[in-house]
Amino acid sequence: MDKKKVVVALGGNALGKNLPEQMKAVTEAVKPIADLIEEGHEVVISHGNGPQVGMISEAMMLLTRSNPEKYVPCPLSVCTAMSQGYIGYDLQNMLREELANRGITMDVASCLTQVEVDPNDPAFDNPTKPIGAFLTKEEADSLVESRGYTVVEDAGRGYRRVVASPKPKAIVEINTIKALSDTGHVVIAAGGGGIPVFHTEKNHLKGAAAVIDKDFASELLAELLDADYLIILTAVEKAAINFGKPDQKWLDDLSVDEAKKYIDEGQFAKGSMLPKVEAAVKFASSKPGRVALITLLEKAKDGINGKTGTRIHA
Amino acid sequence: MDKKKVVVALGGNALGKNLPEQMKAVTEAVKPIADLIEEGHEVVISHGNGPQVGMISEAMMLLTRSNPEKYVPCPLSVCTAMSQGYIGYDLQNMLREELANRGITMDVASCLTQVEVDPNDPAFDNPTKPIGAFLTKEEADSLVESRGYTVVEDAGRGYRRVVASPKPKAIVEINTIKALSDTGHVVIAAGGGGIPVFHTEKNHLKGAAAVIDKDFASELLAELLDADYLIILTAVEKAAINFGKPDQKWLDDLSVDEAKKYIDEGQFAKGSMLPKVEAAVKFASSKPGRVALITLLEKAKDGINGKTGTRIHA
Repeated sequence: MDKKKVVVALGGNALGKNLPEQMKAVTEAVKPIADLIEEGHEVVISHGNGPQVGMISEAMMLLTRSNPEKYVPCPLSVCTAMSQGYIGYDLQNMLREELANRGITMDVASCLTQVEVDPNDPAFDNPTKPIGAFLTKEEADSLVESRGYTVVEDAGRGYRRVVASPKPKAIVEINTIKALSDTGHVVIAAGGGGIPVFHTEKNHLKGAAAVIDKDFASELLAELLDADYLIILTAVEKAAINFGKPDQKWLDDLSVDEAKKYIDEGQFAKGSMLPKVEAAVKFASSKPGRVALITLLEKAKDGINGKTGTRIHA
Repeated sequence: MDKKKVVVALGGNALGKNLPEQMKAVTEAVKPIADLIEEGHEVVISHGNGPQVGMISEAMMLLTRSNPEKYVPCPLSVCTAMSQGYIGYDLQNMLREELANRGITMDVASCLTQVEVDPNDPAFDNPTKPIGAFLTKEEADSLVESRGYTVVEDAGRGYRRVVASPKPKAIVEINTIKALSDTGHVVIAAGGGGIPVFHTEKNHLKGAAAVIDKDFASELLAELLDADYLIILTAVEKAAINFGKPDQKWLDDLSVDEAKKYIDEGQFAKGSMLPKVEAAVKFASSKPGRVALITLLEKAKDGINGKTGTRIHA
C-alpha cells in the first residue's frame, strides 16, 4: 500500500504502573510501531499517562508532606511534564533499539508538548477525573482551602482529588513536531494528552489543573499534521455495539454517520471506548480521505492493511 | 557583531530548589538568553539539574519507602529524564513568552536527551558530584547506612550525596538537536548533563547511576553543533586566581595555555569553577576560532560583546 502519514495513540495503561512494568511494556509496545515504520509509513506517536502521572503526583505529594515548608504541592501540569520525560525516555530509547535491530537507522525524538485548553471549557465546572494518591480528610480539607482543589470521597477508601478533562484547542509546539517529522524523525509528542495550559495575559501560558484526554489530543495532532490515519491502540481488537450482551456485534467498518448514531444510542462506555470513537469520528469528518482506526496494539499493521480493527471513515 | 552559533550552559543552582523558586528564577534566567537571541545569535541552551534531580529523587525515594512492593527505587537516569521535563517545561514556556513580549515569534523546544558515557570511566570508582539537598550529619549518616549512598561534607554548608560524574562520550539525540536548530528553533537540550546511558548489547542503551557534569555535556554539544561560542553562565562575573586571598585577581582574557597553567596550579575549586574552566579549555582547543566565556547569567550579552566575563581562546 501507499506510504501514509500516521498518528499512533498509545494508551497509558499499556505502559505499566511502575518502572519495571513500563520497561517491559515499552519493549513490546514498540514492535507494532516499528512494523508501521518498516512498511514505510511516517509515524508520530502520542501516548496516555494515567498510571504514570498518578505515580509521579503521588511521589510529589509525599515530598510535600515530608517538608511542607520547602515543597508546595506540585501542579498537575508539572507532573505531566515530568511524565513526558519519564515515558518519552523509555519509549524513544526502546523504539530506537527495535528499529536498529531491524537494520533501520532512524532518529526518535520526544517533544515536550504543551496543549492549550479554554479556561471557560465547561469541563472545569465539573471535574470528574480522579488522580493521585488517597488523602486523609485533613489533607483533603487543607488542599481544598489552600489551593482550591476539588476532592471527592472515594468509596470509604479516603479522599481523592478530581480534575477537569477539557478539550484540546491548540498544540503549542506543533511547529516543532512538524519540523522533526519533516526531517525524518519518529516523533513522540503530546504525551499524557499534553501539558495542559491556558492563556492568561497576552503571551503568558499558565498550567491548568486538568488532564486532557489523550485520544482528543492525538486527534488534534493528527489534524494539524494533516495525517492520513489516526490509529488508536487499545486493549480490544475492535469496538462493539451491544457490548457484553447476547447480540454483541464487533464493528469492522463504520461511516461517520453510523458511528454518530451508535454514540447517540449510548453504545460506547464513557471514559473508555466513547472518547476513542468520538475522536475517530472527529478525525474522519475533518477532511476527505482521512481514516481513523481503533484496534489492539499488536494489530496495528494488520489494521492499517485493512485486515482488522474498527475503521471509521467519511 | 556577527551572528554567532552559541551554546549557553545554565547552572542548575540558578533555577531554584523548588517549584515557586524555579518559576521565579526562570523568569529572570530567560532575559539574558532572549538578549542573545534578539541580537540575532543562534542559541542552544543546556542546563544543570543538581537541586532539581535531587528533589525528584527524594520524592521517588519517599514513594518507594511508602510502598516498596509496588515501587522499586527510581534510577538516577530516570530522575534525570523527569527533571528534563520539569525544567524544560518552565524554561521553554517562559523563554517563548519573553521572546513574544519582545515581538519575536520563535519556536522553543526541549529535546529529551540521552548522553552516552563509558561504563569503564574511572569516575564510577570515585563518585564526586553532589546532588540534592544539603543534609545534616544525622541525615547523611542514616542515608549512608540505609541506602549505601556516598556522602561528603560540602564547604562547611552541610552534607550532600555524591554520585559518579563520568565524561560524556556521545549525544544520542544530536541529530534531533541539529534538525531543530537548523529549522530556526531555540533548542533546550542535554538538560542535567543529559540522561546518562551506556551501551551494553549491540543496540541497547542502559541508564547509568551517574550525573554528567553539565559543563562537559554542554562543551560536547557545542563541539558537535560546530558552535562559535560556549557561554557558561554562573554565579560570578569572572573566574579568578588566588580566589579569596589578598592577591585575588579576576581573569578577563586567557589563552588555553594560561588556563591550563592555572588549572595545574589548582587555582579553581573542584566541582565549581574547575569543570567550567576545563570545559572552556576543551572547547577553545577543539577548533580555531572557538571561544568559551564564563560569566554571570545577567551579563551574557555584555560577555559576548567582549565587555566582561572570562574569555578563553586558542
